[in-house]
Order: sequence, then structure tokens, then C-alpha cells
Amino acid sequence: MPDFTSRIRPCYDGSLTLETERRSSDIDVEELACHLLSRDFLRRQRKVLQVLQGEHIFSKTQQMNLSRPERYRLGLARAKAIQRIVRRHGWDDDHYRMAEYLNDEMSPYHLHGTMFVTTIKEQGSEPQKAYWLPQIESWSIIGCYAQSELGHGSNVRGLETVAKWDPVKKEFEIHSPHLTASKWWNGSLGRTATHAVVVAQLLLPRAPSGKPTATRTGLPTATAEPKRVTAAEEEFESHGPQPFILRIRDERTHQPLPGIVIGDIGPKYGYASMDNGYMLFNHVRVPKEAMLSRYAEVSDEMGTLNRKGHPAVVYGSLTFVRGQIIMHARLVLARAVTVAVRYCCVRRQFRDRDSRSEDDEEMKVLDYPTVQIRVLPLLATSFALHYTGEYMYKLYHQSRQTIEKGDFGPLAELHSASSGLKSLCTMLAADGIETCRRAMGGHGFGGGSGLVGLNADYLSKPTVEGDNWMITQQVAAYLIKKMTEAVENREALPKDPTDELFQFYLKSRSHRVPQSIANEDGLIDDEAIVDAFRWRAADLSYRAYQARVVEQKPWTRLMIQLHSLSRAYSEQILVTNFYNSLDSTPSTLSEPTPLVLRTCFRLYALFTLDSFASAFTLTNAVSSDTIYSLPDVILELMADLRPHAVKLVDAWSIPDWLLDSALGRSDGKVYEDLFDRAHRRNPLNRVTFDPRWESEDIVLGSGDGGRQVLAKL
Amino acid sequence: MPDFTSRIRPCYDGSLTLETERRSSDIDVEELACHLLSRDFLRRQRKVLQVLQGEHIFSKTQQMNLSRPERYRLGLARAKAIQRIVRRHGWDDDHYRMAEYLNDEMSPYHLHGTMFVTTIKEQGSEPQKAYWLPQIESWSIIGCYAQSELGHGSNVRGLETVAKWDPVKKEFEIHSPHLTASKWWNGSLGRTATHAVVVAQLLLPRAPSGKPTATRTGLPTATAEPKRVTAAEEEFESHGPQPFILRIRDERTHQPLPGIVIGDIGPKYGYASMDNGYMLFNHVRVPKEAMLSRYAEVSDEMGTLNRKGHPAVVYGSLTFVRGQIIMHARLVLARAVTVAVRYCCVRRQFRDRDSRSEDDEEMKVLDYPTVQIRVLPLLATSFALHYTGEYMYKLYHQSRQTIEKGDFGPLAELHSASSGLKSLCTMLAADGIETCRRAMGGHGFGGGSGLVGLNADYLSKPTVEGDNWMITQQVAAYLIKKMTEAVENREALPKDPTDELFQFYLKSRSHRVPQSIANEDGLIDDEAIVDAFRWRAADLSYRAYQARVVEQKPWTRLMIQLHSLSRAYSEQILVTNFYNSLDSTPSTLSEPTPLVLRTCFRLYALFTLDSFASAFTLTNAVSSDTIYSLPDVILELMADLRPHAVKLVDAWSIPDWLLDSALGRSDGKVYEDLFDRAHRRNPLNRVTFDPRWESEDIVLGSGDGGRQVLAKL
Repeated sequence: MPDFTSRIRPCYDGSLTLETERRSSDIDVEELACHLLSRDFLRRQRKVLQVLQGEHIFSKTQQMNLSRPERYRLGLARAKAIQRIVRRHGWDDDHYRMAEYLNDEMSPYHLHGTMFVTTIKEQGSEPQKAYWLPQIESWSIIGCYAQSELGHGSNVRGLETVAKWDPVKKEFEIHSPHLTASKWWNGSLGRTATHAVVVAQLLLPRAPSGKPTATRTGLPTATAEPKRVTAAEEEFESHGPQPFILRIRDERTHQPLPGIVIGDIGPKYGYASMDNGYMLFNHVRVPKEAMLSRYAEVSDEMGTLNRKGHPAVVYGSLTFVRGQIIMHARLVLARAVTVAVRYCCVRRQFRDRDSRSEDDEEMKVLDYPTVQIRVLPLLATSFALHYTGEYMYKLYHQSRQTIEKGDFGPLAELHSASSGLKSLCTMLAADGIETCRRAMGGHGFGGGSGLVGLNADYLSKPTVEGDNWMITQQVAAYLIKKMTEAVENREALPKDPTDELFQFYLKSRSHRVPQSIANEDGLIDDEAIVDAFRWRAADLSYRAYQARVVEQKPWTRLMIQLHSLSRAYSEQILVTNFYNSLDSTPSTLSEPTPLVLRTCFRLYALFTLDSFASAFTLTNAVSSDTIYSLPDVILELMADLRPHAVKLVDAWSIPDWLLDSALGRSDGKVYEDLFDRAHRRNPLNRVTFDPRWESEDIVLGSGDGGRQVLAKL
Repeated sequence: MPDFTSRIRPCYDGSLTLETERRSSDIDVEELACHLLSRDFLRRQRKVLQVLQGEHIFSKTQQMNLSRPERYRLGLARAKAIQRIVRRHGWDDDHYRMAEYLNDEMSPYHLHGTMFVTTIKEQGSEPQKAYWLPQIESWSIIGCYAQSELGHGSNVRGLETVAKWDPVKKEFEIHSPHLTASKWWNGSLGRTATHAVVVAQLLLPRAPSGKPTATRTGLPTATAEPKRVTAAEEEFESHGPQPFILRIRDERTHQPLPGIVIGDIGPKYGYASMDNGYMLFNHVRVPKEAMLSRYAEVSDEMGTLNRKGHPAVVYGSLTFVRGQIIMHARLVLARAVTVAVRYCCVRRQFRDRDSRSEDDEEMKVLDYPTVQIRVLPLLATSFALHYTGEYMYKLYHQSRQTIEKGDFGPLAELHSASSGLKSLCTMLAADGIETCRRAMGGHGFGGGSGLVGLNADYLSKPTVEGDNWMITQQVAAYLIKKMTEAVENREALPKDPTDELFQFYLKSRSHRVPQSIANEDGLIDDEAIVDAFRWRAADLSYRAYQARVVEQKPWTRLMIQLHSLSRAYSEQILVTNFYNSLDSTPSTLSEPTPLVLRTCFRLYALFTLDSFASAFTLTNAVSSDTIYSLPDVILELMADLRPHAVKLVDAWSIPDWLLDSALGRSDGKVYEDLFDRAHRRNPLNRVTFDPRWESEDIVLGSGDGGRQVLAKL
């Protein structure tokens, strides 16, 4: 047979196409890449990539042909290999994290280095830290974090696992009173971990009436007041969820300890390499030291709880985690957009309907506005996410010092902003992956898209670490509180950006006129865009305040409205930060990059405005004329952005190895790679099957009536 | 250890919960089920279910733990088993299709019984049918349909595979001139089929100048005029794509025939059991009879093409297929909604924020409006899809007779409507699955949701059988043509519903006043709702006509607008058919079902209206007051629907075995089933791993440094 792979028609030659695309834009890709990711990040990426690419175990070529149990085995083997490489090369934490990023699967070790160690560090007493941290850092134990349960995820206060204080033996009894009390979903627990942080309801004996069972030595906390518990526990009362550190498996046999049932919860949408687990306790006794006691300790004598200090600092690290989620979301979205932009340039389909000549080539599909409207606003969104992610990091580090000094003022604002942004950004990225996939037509559905695994894994994000619809209620509650304060004290000194916004709003609302986003010359007025987003957010906050505080409407009745409020508020943050970055970037970036970024800003903002047009008109944020003009403005912005699309995605510097995508290859060899995956790498093609229904054989001449597979059913 | 599964707290007892839910509604589920699905369907479903459930090979319990190559093996084994069962029980086609539906995976035999046999029947000459149909019906050959290629999917005219007529030997030479000419994606081709219908560009020798190489004996066709081809083919000209039937594999060895390269294209998002394939030809000779020649035949003497009759009837069956897609979409959506509704009743999380008592139970999450707004409009949508699916079937059967008589008048309308609806309905279902999944929070991401496979498979639908964004262009082109005719001849007798709508619009547009959807008593006016949808569709059609015909704007510039037009037009069909069904159902259904269906109609329509509010105001379809009132109206409709939600999904009668969902079980034993899947059915839990990074073992004490898995990389 001839070598078909060398027969590429010039018009379908992806390498030529991407070369042409890159020549059509003057963006300095390396400069922009450094601006987005830093020179350090890029250097580290190259270095780690080279090492991983050199080890066969990290090869991604057969990953999609493995079963879920095989994927866990491989995941564990890779996690171990990375540990050995880290030690061999003396890599620091940043390099380790880069290896995880490029390995691109949720490692069975993941929780050890994140929630497990963080919880010990933040909630352990000094002696506890002295005891545990060396074991953690040497990886002589492997930990996980067991908070959520079969029956409770978001509602931490509803957790059912109990830790009952035995005042005689001075120890705790950990117990799962019901099936729904089973720990569930906890990563690294199912097959890997030797230890766990277990969050359980602390039960202390009820004090003789009149005597408190809890004392406070620090500031007031957010934790609940003691609550009566039912039935057999009648003589005990709950002091809310507390973290305990437990040995859960035998170090020699790796079997669960007596009284503990543990396992992996089974296949999921994604995370095939991760052993999300379950765990049940049957009256398991643990020593007093198991309770992490930096902020609360049970006194030996009385069995009372002494609270110490302010665990609010814990919310600080939650905020940091959410900042990371935004930065992660931008790279996930950038990855999907990279694939879509490159493939949609290489892919041609149909000649222009208005074409007069049979000799015209078929159009690149990225030249169709129906493809642009799906892909280019997402390209712009990846930059919007970036500048807000940076802003959140900065804010976090600034506030961190204030918080460490005992001033928890900035925490509420930071927590609210990060919650709303977590909800919005993970949704934008999760939906964005699928939008990109569909924009790629049929081949988008194939394994060569490189999006199958990314999608399956990322789909967890909208519901974990705070469900995207649930946490917006917290954002709205905060905004209502702030608006109430602003209404009640209009002259107070603004403490944060929300105060500033709300005070401005309250001063101007009586004479507000819906704005146009064009200035007198008919050009786009960027400040007017920012103003529109801020006005909508403030006005929706005021409506929520009216409904809840003034009209006293039931909370549940307002929930949908409050969710929209959180979204509007978060979009305002994205738009404001993107806009502010435009002023600071020109000095470091050469033309035309600053101009192109401005186009991205406008496209992101106006596409969003168009999608929520009726909320913008309802709130008098913009005029109807503005709304009606948007489709044409957006078409023009997309036309402006189009020539730079390939170089913009190049700047995100996602290595081909990580993309693992035939469609998204940086060299454009889309069809060659698709064919290679099918023809050379597909193990199914090495087997000859027997398709006749009368035959018992599945594989031709094997005498195997499907027995091999059936044995697994 | 105690038996944890028996420890269920009453408030988390799903069986009790669903019993209570069912008692709270007076809907007669069986009656509604018969109305939706017919008594025959339900009887057949019970019968086939019983047989499949009894055979181990159809067990779904381990499916998610199999690798993709294993899934193909299993798929083939099941396809064969179904053939044997069909013969053993003497099942007819309806029973066979029911078995496929319940088996719930794309069978490697799928194309044989669909596109392969349909194409032979519709495009084969009488002698060809006499020769092939007996072999097809006895399954002594297994066929597939090879149209789309690596480089071309939507644009059939751009296919690159050629079938060149050899005037000396009187045979065709099938050839793939470029890599992108490779047949691609074709189901059942990769490993299964022995025969294929191959669509190739027919190349005939260029006639001496002045003489035609094609004659017509029938009506004009939509097929292209001869087109010059390039380079080496200079002396030939293309007569467009034609279907050929080819033997592709040896019946004994099942190896591809000489000159043919075939294989499976590899893993995809879904369809793991299906061998989507690729195929390349290297100058393969086939006899003249290979070309299916009902509508076109090459004359032996001259090598000219004789076209006979009108292949438009082929578009008729395309329309029928699209009708089926709508009916399928409704069941897919119903399935996702069934799971979400049941689970969201059983799942409780948080007490009402306004609750005053610690003793209040946590709320069922379906009582949160933020969950309702995601799930209940989709529940309503499943019914909207149903009534339009029925309408399309009826229309198809009515028109079929007219078309068979040679009157192709109704075909354009039917084709347009079915294209727009395919795009809209598959999008609603695909997005709906994911919306339901997210509404279920964390557990929605688990394998116990039962949506993992459904989602992965169904995600193909928005891009296959006509890409959802591409085919809307055809709809818009049709509507522009119809509007042009209506403008040019305002008094013509309306030939179809579109004519009626456009004539009404043109008569009323000068004095249109935006409507309210409430009547004088403040009640919802259903006719006004229908009017609003129809007006928007007509007005957007008029705008498109203005832009394209009057202002002569470039087609590409209008594409986004035209896509929205198609959607608006299709939504108008859904709303109109749903509304019309309300008048005809009360006679057959007992109360409160007709009332509840009316609530579904209103919820679907007003939720849609709210989502596209600015298009409805822009077109003067409804007043701004209507728009601003919608959130409250929708909240009330959802509250009305809420008590009936469980019984409404029960009526869709999706068997538990098909749902394969812990969350969606009809008996509500959600937590018991989740635990059983994890604890008893998960093969990973039978293995003890060695998590220490220093150890070469993956499995404890195995001495296997992951070699088993690594060998597959």
C-alpha cells in the first residue's frame, strides 16, 4: 500500500495553514507568554516536561484504552515515579507541582500534599505539628482528608460521624451511627492513604444544668452553639464538627484497622486515577491527641471544650485555594481554546455561499462567524480570568498580613469575592470546554480532540469545593449585608471596593440615565462598559436588599435572584480587573499586543453584556440602543481579533505533550496525527474479530465466546 | 462489622420519601404512560426487559470498569446474543429495536439495519435489491455506510474519494487520492462489517466538447452540475457523490480485501461499543453493478450518466430519521430528568434559612428554587419534545403519500422544520443531561448517577446527522425564501403553516403592539404565549429577508442572526404543538393530568421566553412588563408543578434496569445502592495496593512494579 500519510492536499495542510496564520499577526508570542506565565514558569515547564517525556510511564498514548482499575494502578505507579524523580533531581515544590500539572491526572497522592498537610499545619497544636509534620514531609505516612459524607457535602454542620468523649478513659470514640454517616468522595482514601484527617461532630457530656461545657479564650467564632443531640446520645451534646487525625490502615498489611471499613467508591465521570473513598467507623477508640487542638481542646478534668483563638485564618487558606481554582480555570479554558482555534484554522468546510467561483477554496471554519461566536469570546475569557486570578492572589497576600495581625476585616470581602468567582469561573471553563468541542464538529467527539479526559475531570469543578449554586447564596448574603450598612450609614469611610461601589450607587441612583457604551465619536467607551457592569451589580444588590431587608421576603423565594446577583457581581470583578490591567500592561508589552488585549477585554465584556441584556436594561445600566447595537459590534470585534487568534493561544504555551490532541497540535499536522492514532496506536486494530452472529467466537478462530470479557461482568 | 446498609435515618429514607411524594399527586401514572408511549410500547418494554435481564451478558454492573477494547468485545458479543434471542423468540422489528434501546449501547451491528439497508432499498435498482436484500435480511453479510471522510463531514459535495469509470473495462476504480479522502467515523466499519455502501465522487470521461455526459430522464435534481476536476483527472469530470456497494472484507479471513485499508478510529467520548472506522482505497476495481442505480446509471456505451426520477424521496427518509431523533431526544431527556427529580427529592441538605427551630428537618433539595429552575423546566421540555415528535411523525406520514405520488411540495417545509428541530432538540437534551447532573451536586459526578454513559454517548448528537449550527443555515435559507414569496405575493393561498404565519405577520406588522401574556383578569393567556413565539419567529424571518434580499448583505455576516432565527422558528413549532395538544388531551386523560400538562406548557414556554427576553422585546412580540413579571410567574408555575414531579417522571416509564442509576432508583434506595456499588461491586476493592513511593510494587507483595499496566502503554 502507498504511504497515505504523505498525501496531503496543500489546502488541507495544517502546517502551512498555521504558518500563514502566525505570519498574519505581529504579536510577540514569547513576550506575551512571559507576561502571562512568567519566565520562571516557562523555564520550569520546559525542564520538567523534558524529564517526564523521557520516561515511558508518563506516555499518554494508550491512556484512553485502559480500564478504570488499570488507570488507578497507572496513577499510583506514576505518583510513585514522580516522588522518585523529585528526589533524584532535588526538585522543589514548584517543580513538583509542575510535574503534577503536566502529568495531567489526579494523583492518588494528591490529598497528602494539599488538604491533609494544610489541615495539620493550620489546625494542629505545636506538639501535634512537631509529631506529624516530619512523618508527612518524609512521606513515611500518606494522608487524606475525610470531611464529606454519603449524606452531607455542602452542609458541613450536618455531618453525622461522631467523636464522643469518654470522660473515664479520656479518649474519643469515633462512630458512624448511620449509613449516610459514611465518609464519601474523599480523595486518596479508597486504596492509598495510611492516615486521615476525619471531621466529626464533637460530642461532650452534657454539663450539670447552669454550667457551660464550652469556654472561650479567644475571639467569638463562627462555630455553632452546643446543640442537643437525640436518642441514645441524649446525655451528650454536640459542639459542631472538629478535625481528628487518625491512623486508618495497618502499615504492614495496608488493611483497614479493626472497626474501620474503607474502600474506593467506584468509577466516576473523571478522576479515573484517583481513589475517591468511603469509610465507616464502628465505635473506634482514639486517644485525646487525635483531635487537632490549635483552636479547641477538650479539658481532661471536666470534658469541657476550650476554644482558643480565631479559626478564621482557615478561611484565608480557603480563599487562597479559590484563587488557585481561578488560575487553574484559565489554563483549562486556554487549553480547550488552543485546540479549537488551531483546529478551526486547519479545518475547511464549504465554500463561501456568496462565492462566485468554483475555484475558491473551502473556508477555514474559524472564518465563519457561527464558529467565531463560540470560540473567540472564550479566548477573550481566558484573559479575563487571568487578570482576576492575579488580582485575587495579590489581594490575598496583602490581606494575609492584616489577618495574621488579628484584623479579620478584609476576610469577609475576600471570601465573598472568591466564592462568587469560584462559581462563575469554573462554570465558564466547564461550559467552555464543551462549547469548544462542539465548535469542532464531528472530530471534536473523537479521542483526537484531546478534550475527553480534560472534560471528564473538569466537570467535577462546578459541584466540588462549594457547589456553584450553593455558594452564591453566601455571596448574596454578604452583598445584602453590605448594602444594608451602606444604606444605613451613607457617609461611612469605605473599607473595601464593595463599599465604594455601593456608596457611589446610592448617591447616583436618583438621577441615573441608562448609558450608551459608545462615546460621542461613536467609538467604544471602555469606561462606560465598566460602569455598566458595576451599575448592574450594585442595582441588583439594592433590589436584593429591598426584597430581603425591607420587604422581608422568604430567603428561598429569592434564591434564583440571589444567584444572578452573585454572577453579576463576579462579572463586574472580572470586567473591572481586566480593564485595570489594560492601563498597566502597555509599558511592558510591545504593539500590537496591548491593542489586541483591549479587543479581548471588549469582546469578553460585550459578549457577556449581550448574553444578559435584559438584566442590563432592567437595572438601567445601559440603553436599549446599546443592546440592539451589540451583535454588530461583537462581529467587528471578532473580525479584529481573528488574525491574532493562533498567536494568542500560542502565548498560553500549553505543550503539545500536555494537550495530547491531534486537532490542537502546534504544528497543525491534524490529519496525519488522527490517522496515526487510528492506524498505528489503536490496539483494537491488532485483533481480527468474528462478526457472524451464528458464531460463538468473538475473536476469529479463538473458540472464545466472549468468555474473557464476560468473566469481568 | 455491623450491617451498615440497614441503618438509614428516617429523614434520609428514600423509599419513604418517594412514597410520600407519590401520595401527594393524583396523577394516574399508568394512564399518562399509555398516553405518552402507547400500551403496545409498554407491553413490549416489559416483555423484552424480562428476557434481557435474565441473560448475564446484558448485566450493566461492571460496564464502567471495562476498557474501551473490552467494551467493543462485549458490544459485539451482545449484538450477536440479541440476534439469537430475536430468532429464538421470533421477535419482530419493534421488539428488536426495543432490545437495542434497553441494551443501551451503540451496537456494532447498528449500521447494518439502518443506513446500510435503507440506502440499498431507496437507491438500489430492482435487480440490485433482488440481489442484496435477501443477504442483508438473513444477516449473511454485515453492512455499514461509508460517507463521511477525514476531511469532509457536513460538506458532502466536498468528498474526495473518487469512483472513476473505466470505459474500456466497463468498471469503476475506487480510489483515495489524499489522506483526507479516507473514509472516517463510519459506524460498524472498523472491525465488524463485511460490506459497505461507499459514497464517492463519480468521475466520467469528459465528453467531446458540445456533447453532454449527463442526460436527464426525470425531474431536475438538487445534485450539482458536472464540475471540472484537477491535475491527473483532467480528462474526467465529476458528477457529484454517488453511492456504491462494495465487498470490503474476505468472508473467511475477515481481512480487508486487497487495495483496501480499514481500521477502527480509536477511543471517543462515548460509543465505546461501536467500531467507528476508517477506510482508504488504492485503485480498487469494482464492477459496474456496484453503483446503486435507481436514480442514476452510467451507460456502457458512452460512459454518460443517465439520471432517472427524483431522489428527493431520499430526503423524505432523512426527515423521518430526524423525527426519530426528536422522539429519542425526549426519552434521553426524560431519563436524565427522572434521575434528577427522584434524587433531588431524596437528597436533603441544609435547613431553611428562615427556619426558627433546630428540630426542622433539612430541606429536600428539589424544594430549593435554585434546583427547581434547573430541573423542572427540563421536565416540561420532555413533554414539549414529545408533542412535536408526534406531530412530525404525523406530518411525515401524511406527506409521504403526496411525495410518493410525485408531488414534492411538502418536502421542503418538512425538511426545514425537521432540520431546525434536530438542532434545537438535540441541544436541549445534551445540555439538559449536564444541567441535571450538576443539579445533583457531588453525587451527580459519580458513576451511581447513571448519566456517565448517557452523557458520553449523547454528546455526539449535536454534531452528527447535520451539525447543529450548520443545518440551521438551511432552515434560515428556507424561511428567507418563504418570506420573499410572501412579500411578493401577499394574497397567495397558503400552502403550509409557514405561509399562514408569514401572511398573518405581513398583514399585522404595521399595527403591532407588544403583547402582555396576562389576560384582563391577570391570568396567564396561553394564546398570547403562542402568539408571542410565532410573532418573534416571523419578525426575525422578516429581518433576515430584509438583510439578505433587500440589503443584499453577505451571507456569512448574517450567520449568527440566521442561527438564532432557526432556533426561534423551531421554538415556535414546539410551543404551538404543545399548545395544540392541550386541547386534544383532556378527553383522554383524567384530572389533574391535563391541568398539570398545561402547567408544563406554560413553564416550558415562559422559561424559554425569559431566556431570550431581549429578542422578544426587540421584535415587539411581548411588552417589557411581561418580561419583568416572568421570574415571579415562573416561580409560581414551578411551585404548582413541584408536587407532581415524581409522578410525571414515573410516567416516562424508564425501567430501573435501563436507568442503571443509584440516584434515580424508582424505589428511592439511593444511599443503599451507592454503598452497594462501592462496597460490593467495585473490583478495585478486592486488591490491596502498596502506596509507599519507595516500593516497586503496585499491588502489595506482588513484585510487580506496575509492569502489567505498563505493558499496555
